[in-house]
Amino acid sequence: MKILVIGASGTIGKEVTKELEHDHDIILAGRNGADISVDITSPDSIKNMYEQIGKVDAVVNAAGGAAFSPLTELTPEKNEKGILSKLKGQVNLVLLGLDHVNDNGCFTLTTGIMMDDPILQGASAAMANGGVKAFVKSAAIEMPRGIRINSVSPNAVQESWDRLRDYFPGFQAVPANRVALAFKKSVYGAQTGQNYEVY
Amino acid sequence: MKILVIGASGTIGKEVTKELEHDHDIILAGRNGADISVDITSPDSIKNMYEQIGKVDAVVNAAGGAAFSPLTELTPEKNEKGILSKLKGQVNLVLLGLDHVNDNGCFTLTTGIMMDDPILQGASAAMANGGVKAFVKSAAIEMPRGIRINSVSPNAVQESWDRLRDYFPGFQAVPANRVALAFKKSVYGAQTGQNYEVY
Ligand SMILES: NC(=O)c1ccc[n+]([C@@H]2O[C@H](COP(=O)([O-])OP(=O)(O)OC[C@H]3O[C@@H](n4cnc5c(N)ncnc54)[C@H](OP(=O)(O)O)[C@@H]3O)[C@@H](O)[C@H]2O)c1
Ligand SMILES: NC(=O)c1ccc[n+]([C@@H]2O[C@H](COP(=O)([O-])OP(=O)(O)OC[C@H]3O[C@@H](n4cnc5c(N)ncnc54)[C@H](OP(=O)(O)O)[C@@H]3O)[C@@H](O)[C@H]2O)c1
Repeated sequence: MKILVIGASGTIGKEVTKELEHDHDIILAGRNGADISVDITSPDSIKNMYEQIGKVDAVVNAAGGAAFSPLTELTPEKNEKGILSKLKGQVNLVLLGLDHVNDNGCFTLTTGIMMDDPILQGASAAMANGGVKAFVKSAAIEMPRGIRINSVSPNAVQESWDRLRDYFPGFQAVPANRVALAFKKSVYGAQTGQNYEVY
Repeated sequence: MKILVIGASGTIGKEVTKELEHDHDIILAGRNGADISVDITSPDSIKNMYEQIGKVDAVVNAAGGAAFSPLTELTPEKNEKGILSKLKGQVNLVLLGLDHVNDNGCFTLTTGIMMDDPILQGASAAMANGGVKAFVKSAAIEMPRGIRINSVSPNAVQESWDRLRDYFPGFQAVPANRVALAFKKSVYGAQTGQNYEVY
């Protein structure tokens, strides 16, 4: 298979790439992508990317973020990062990518535990995660040509724990390669409309 | 209590207002609101509204929409309605309204069954609903001064059934006044972070 991995240089994207690269051609993407550059916050950039790479069998996205902020300091402006990046960035990868994915192909997006097990400062990320999860569940019933769509919802990962531990007290971080397995399940498997929780 | 109802003239908002107006001062809001005019897609309009009405005890929102579209015809542009109106419109009513709600007050937003029981053409609305639900759950743990926040998730309502029946085959529409009861539960009750399903 030819698999596009956006966010391939990231903590999670690196492990996903490791898990898939033995058996497949991987196209490494990101703002500074090794193979192709894309900024998922820009629909034009997404369109450009798809035009350049041609058809793929799977699109895996492990890019996208949202602002951490105490709720009382969260402004519409700060909330915009999660809207533009984690939510619309991922939804647009699907809407603009449908014609670039082969029959029976697959999209796999990323959500996160914060929507299910809320933490302080996490409302904007939770919002974006919840939007992506519901989009995936609903879009799955309308995907053309046997294309599937799932998301993976990681707990905080061990490789990011130094940065995250103060935000996630009492959470047990998971190894990024366990998260990568859920991406593999989505790409190799036959399920659709799922949000794989790696908690 | 002084209760701000946005979307008060709508199918659901009318029933919510009926349910609350015996015991409370209701401020009727909407783009053509009887008491005050607001467009929830505009943060400036929301700010103006809150400045004009002063402090309230509860904010109830029954306004907001998203585009219905087959997934293969859903563009980033069409998806923007759900982002601007149902998702950011509602989130911004909270972010910009926090200082205008009295201690132990309450926000109640609206989601909808399409995130849980997907229908054709519903991916954009599902996305917005899922974002609002997750925001509510997460924001609830950080609300200041005892303020609560919930959402109500209506099934298709009987009063809208002529317009909606073709989109919701096999669904059993619920009366709008049953939906209004869930808003009442949110406003009068003590729960927070809930999404009341009226299915
Ligand atoms: N790390 C965790 O513990 C954790 C837990 C739960 C959920 N998640 C979620 O998992 C996803 C990946 O997290 P991560 O920790 O692996 O992130 P990360 O280490 O910061 O890596 C992010 C990756 O995405 C790329 N990227 C960033 N912004 C982009 C944009 N606008 N357009 C295209 N590519 C972009 C980056 O490369 P460039 O800089 O070259 O663009 C990089 O490859 C995120 O959605 C995150 O919220 C992470
Ligand atoms: N009806 C259903 O079967 C059903 C089922 C599930 C969920 N819902 C959800 O419930 C909510 C209300 O639905 P509804 O059927 O009652 O809607 P509706 O009958 O169309 O009424 C919408 C109300 O919101 C106001 N409004 C619309 N856009 C606005 C804006 N940008 N800013 C401020 N006010 C605005 C309208 O007044 P103005 O025109 O004066 O602004 C009106 O009062 C929506 O979120 C809908 O998705 C409805």
